[in-house]
Amino acid sequence: MKANPLLEKLHAGDRLSLARCISLVENDSSAAIEILQSLQINHKTPVIGVTGPPGAGKSTLVSALLSYLLETRPEVKIAVLAVDPTSPFTHGSLLGDRLRMTEHFNNQQVFIRSLATRGALGGLSAKTIEITDILRATDFDFIFIETVGVGQSELEIASLADTTVVVFVPESGDEIQTIKSGIMEIADLFVVNKADRDGADKLQKNLLSTLHERSASDWQVPVVKTIASSKQGIADLFEKIESHLHFNNTHPQLQNLLFAKAIRLAENYLIRKVNLSVFQQELAVASVQPHFNIYQFISDKFK
Amino acid sequence: MKANPLLEKLHAGDRLSLARCISLVENDSSAAIEILQSLQINHKTPVIGVTGPPGAGKSTLVSALLSYLLETRPEVKIAVLAVDPTSPFTHGSLLGDRLRMTEHFNNQQVFIRSLATRGALGGLSAKTIEITDILRATDFDFIFIETVGVGQSELEIASLADTTVVVFVPESGDEIQTIKSGIMEIADLFVVNKADRDGADKLQKNLLSTLHERSASDWQVPVVKTIASSKQGIADLFEKIESHLHFNNTHPQLQNLLFAKAIRLAENYLIRKVNLSVFQQELAVASVQPHFNIYQFISDKFK
Repeated sequence: MKANPLLEKLHAGDRLSLARCISLVENDSSAAIEILQSLQINHKTPVIGVTGPPGAGKSTLVSALLSYLLETRPEVKIAVLAVDPTSPFTHGSLLGDRLRMTEHFNNQQVFIRSLATRGALGGLSAKTIEITDILRATDFDFIFIETVGVGQSELEIASLADTTVVVFVPESGDEIQTIKSGIMEIADLFVVNKADRDGADKLQKNLLSTLHERSASDWQVPVVKTIASSKQGIADLFEKIESHLHFNNTHPQLQNLLFAKAIRLAENYLIRKVNLSVFQQELAVASVQPHFNIYQFISDKFK
Repeated sequence: MKANPLLEKLHAGDRLSLARCISLVENDSSAAIEILQSLQINHKTPVIGVTGPPGAGKSTLVSALLSYLLETRPEVKIAVLAVDPTSPFTHGSLLGDRLRMTEHFNNQQVFIRSLATRGALGGLSAKTIEITDILRATDFDFIFIETVGVGQSELEIASLADTTVVVFVPESGDEIQTIKSGIMEIADLFVVNKADRDGADKLQKNLLSTLHERSASDWQVPVVKTIASSKQGIADLFEKIESHLHFNNTHPQLQNLLFAKAIRLAENYLIRKVNLSVFQQELAVASVQPHFNIYQFISDKFK
């Protein structure tokens, strides 16, 4: 397996090979399993998840973080994966399209890829995990994963990212009920973006007091104010991200997150092994029987 | 397999056996596969999905529909499955708790069950599909599935329900961008609830004009105004639901929805066959190796 030239180039940092490997996995090519099994994953490459409600300015914030890193670390190499779980019917990815329009798209040190996952077979997040591992098998210093925080997606980003940044705007204060359910537990860091608007201080205060009630960890979740469009607060934000990455190194990731990830990958692996077009044809024939039981059908096929 | 007394009672309409079967599947009991494979599923029992943003009044609307059906059809038997995909960390189900508090909870003709699915292993929706099939294997006349419309969940309800009702409130008009992405395609019927508030007519008009632009089906999606808390508009809503159920009978469900459902169920079936605690232990041991590749680990385990 080591003789695969595509993987050799990927591991050496070649961007075209990287893009090709990602496409093979994204499209469930028959080569996907072999590529994934032969990846030399660098488990130390930091993965930073950025999530939050639509309109919070996540893309602008990621773009500002890229500018900051490119200015302060001349040799830095950064990957951005923009995951769009919201639309099952449009194949384009809004987030990625927005990022493409930024100043960084033609920078050789920056690799931007978008991924539309909603409605994906084989588990929503499995491909996101797989593509992140491909990114970790090449020479990036930082990997950012941006996704709209709706439903399941924040949970997934938390199981994937070393540091999860949850971005709100002052207006998000009104949705405090939504904020409280689940998202408090997954955020390693909160950002109140567009902090020049009314309500920023109040939201920051509310978040800090809710965090204080819930604190059960050694990590004190910071709440950082930014104005991403004018790059304010970005140095402070990145310093907090680095603090959390450092904290992780001394407090290893929980084993149950790895387990949840393994289960999702196992599902995807098993589905890849089935010939889906044959499965679909047999299903179409069987399903018109009057006493069709789909569970019996599945157990016959996966004996 | 036909000798299973639990299943015999389930098929005969016994509610305790129904609750027991659901719990066995929900908890991934070793009996789950056998139960599912032996279900005599009545594919004609109508499944009505009700989804929409938090605060749209979905529970109140379902409660009003139950009142209407109980009044107009004295012998009717109705199941309600309240699926909560929003919280991975609380095991209770908010939606179900709210429904429990309604007037119908002690009515023998009504069966209410809640299900917290977020963060579930083996696919978010697989258990929802399985439990719906258990409900279809007994004597209900209608099955309602209520879920908060966030991210993936509306898509899932659409692949599960014969008729998908999407509920908004007048204030939802401000989120028209969100409304347009995906949800227009899955709704068989829109409800503007709390229609005594400002903006109800405007939202109805906007929905109708967006629907008009997109219409590609023989079914004209209605937009019904209700005030669920005072049971206004409920007869009209149910009439539209029945029209859509009738439409379905003459326009069979798309084959690709069945395929997506089969894939999710197959994932769940395969994961159930693995001994998860052994898998977890082996994973914990393997993952500390310096060159650990999770894809190699999985392919070794699922050979």
